[in-house]
Amino acid sequence: MAVGVVVPQDFVFGEIPEDRLPLDCGKTLGPVTLRYETHGTLNAGRSNAVLILHALSGDAHVAGRHREDDRKAGWWDEMVGPGRAFDPERHFIVCSNVIGGCAGSTGPRSVNPTTGRRYNLDFPMITIADMVRAQHRLMAHLGISRWLSVVGGSMGGMQVLEWARRYPEAVASAIPIATTARLSSQSIAFNWVGRQAIMNDPAWRNGEYEDAVPEQGLAIARMIGHITYLSDRSMDTKFGRRLQARDRYSYDFKRDFEVESYLEHQGQRFVERFDANSYLYISRALDYFDLSACGDGDLAKALAPARHCPFLVISFSSDWLFPPYQSKEIVGALRNNHAAVTYCDIESMYGHDAFLLEAEVLGRLIGDFLRCREREVGDA
Amino acid sequence: MAVGVVVPQDFVFGEIPEDRLPLDCGKTLGPVTLRYETHGTLNAGRSNAVLILHALSGDAHVAGRHREDDRKAGWWDEMVGPGRAFDPERHFIVCSNVIGGCAGSTGPRSVNPTTGRRYNLDFPMITIADMVRAQHRLMAHLGISRWLSVVGGSMGGMQVLEWARRYPEAVASAIPIATTARLSSQSIAFNWVGRQAIMNDPAWRNGEYEDAVPEQGLAIARMIGHITYLSDRSMDTKFGRRLQARDRYSYDFKRDFEVESYLEHQGQRFVERFDANSYLYISRALDYFDLSACGDGDLAKALAPARHCPFLVISFSSDWLFPPYQSKEIVGALRNNHAAVTYCDIESMYGHDAFLLEAEVLGRLIGDFLRCREREVGDA
Repeated sequence: MAVGVVVPQDFVFGEIPEDRLPLDCGKTLGPVTLRYETHGTLNAGRSNAVLILHALSGDAHVAGRHREDDRKAGWWDEMVGPGRAFDPERHFIVCSNVIGGCAGSTGPRSVNPTTGRRYNLDFPMITIADMVRAQHRLMAHLGISRWLSVVGGSMGGMQVLEWARRYPEAVASAIPIATTARLSSQSIAFNWVGRQAIMNDPAWRNGEYEDAVPEQGLAIARMIGHITYLSDRSMDTKFGRRLQARDRYSYDFKRDFEVESYLEHQGQRFVERFDANSYLYISRALDYFDLSACGDGDLAKALAPARHCPFLVISFSSDWLFPPYQSKEIVGALRNNHAAVTYCDIESMYGHDAFLLEAEVLGRLIGDFLRCREREVGDA
Repeated sequence: MAVGVVVPQDFVFGEIPEDRLPLDCGKTLGPVTLRYETHGTLNAGRSNAVLILHALSGDAHVAGRHREDDRKAGWWDEMVGPGRAFDPERHFIVCSNVIGGCAGSTGPRSVNPTTGRRYNLDFPMITIADMVRAQHRLMAHLGISRWLSVVGGSMGGMQVLEWARRYPEAVASAIPIATTARLSSQSIAFNWVGRQAIMNDPAWRNGEYEDAVPEQGLAIARMIGHITYLSDRSMDTKFGRRLQARDRYSYDFKRDFEVESYLEHQGQRFVERFDANSYLYISRALDYFDLSACGDGDLAKALAPARHCPFLVISFSSDWLFPPYQSKEIVGALRNNHAAVTYCDIESMYGHDAFLLEAEVLGRLIGDFLRCREREVGDA
């Protein structure tokens, strides 16, 4: 059953100097707003809280609708609701927008209180660890000392790994999905090209755009990303070489193929809801993510603090952005530490996006895993 | 042994109306210049001619040097020379630049004789079949009625397939390498994004650029392409997450990683030697390539005219642009026609670019295959 209307909330911290958020780059950030949404109620034992972490283009709006007549529900709506994996009748579900984002949390387009103008490129570079540090403040604010589980796909999965490593006492279980412990050379390369497209757009103006935003550059970055989220096979199944509303080639450079029309549409839709500077910052945070660096190059060492945390690691067979072998590296490191780890490589043709699309099998796996964790927490 | 200095030659045709080149789009093109280079001598029986066909960014300069002090040799230099697979002591080797290109053959930047100005977007859309039709004119000009073999990788391999199908009497054997019988949805998608980057570059000016060329757009298109030419593993081996001349992150958007520096370099080098409008036209020719369409969707039917032609089909295990399964489709269609086909999937980590890099194993395979064909031609 779907959840109903949800009201976004803001948590603000770091308004006084000693409360500012320290960042990996050496700077501090404050004040910081975190936009978050919740479903369900924290129980008396404060043992039923689940933290859901979103991907690059995601936000706090994980499920339900902001208004009854919203056409679209939150990004993981099928996973959240009575009888679903994340069940507001059993769980207190929290999803927070990351810092650096553009959906309510403090990011490069926020106003810098010391100048009264948008940060833009004065915004400090942020990392996955910085995102997690900010969420840790939210956790205290919500009166939670331990999450029943932290869960997320893609960039959300990186945050899961960082949570488990950095705050092991605060994480009763962890579910990293379709993710990696470090960005590969190929992924860094795609991110680089996407950022170049944004920064080459004359409308970008070194990040100081106002009315005219670097739409074309951002659309190109998104289209590149989007191809990496799908699989060769899913694209061939969905579009193949079908032409868009025509029966022969146009012999020009306009849209001929359905896949071209689809990409153009995805690019345009993204520009309406996402900010170019946020794209730069968050994609850079992805590049910089390398968990093994926290263990002097040894992933098992980096994950050693999380050795008492049960993991459910999930990958998808056709994901070529963060392929199964990268999940297996995580699993190998966890097993090396004798952590309790369940690993499932789900056979799917949907590529990386499968973590958003394979809700049925994901829901079953995660639902079972969470019920076991609830029993453990209840027994403890 | 390497070949020495080679002098490019031009063949011009289509200067009178009835001699113009008919194109798939319905238009005709003329006059047409084809830039080509040759090695070796046509034998008395005219039976030793080999046609080498180049890829998207290739040209007629397959081997040797234009000047003795040229720093770089032709693009397949390791394959051409005495004792090599293509041996000027045995073969008359021909390599011609495609129409639509920017390395001597007629393309969008050529002057349109009817206007006295560059064609730019007035250049007619060309297809792989059009490229092959033009080469067929060159063949007659050279006094050759049958190629001992036509061979090429990537887009060159598409021309090989088209040659074998369109002019079966003129092809004694065919060697399509790292290629496909039709562009997949994913490849069309990457090409689309690359073209958008070029056409969004303000310097492009609807193709009418002169002094200021759309460098940034073309560099982005090239960088996207370049990632698809490498494999995840080869990138991780070659660059990994190594930083470029620094020991910690810069926490900014400049080049941090070696792979970023490499891509930037590749983009810049490409801009120096390739033309943006040519990139648009040739990438569109790739999109439009679908051999099975010539057989009403049946690849075996499309290749039926080539059923008496021996084929050597070669793919590379880590090629994800034109993956082995696409070569296997070609092989399956040929076998369906009872054609004599040898198929080899070469284990390589170099991705699509392996056809340029795995010269040793390629040379051995192709050398053996050609020697058999020479014997057959000799016996006939």
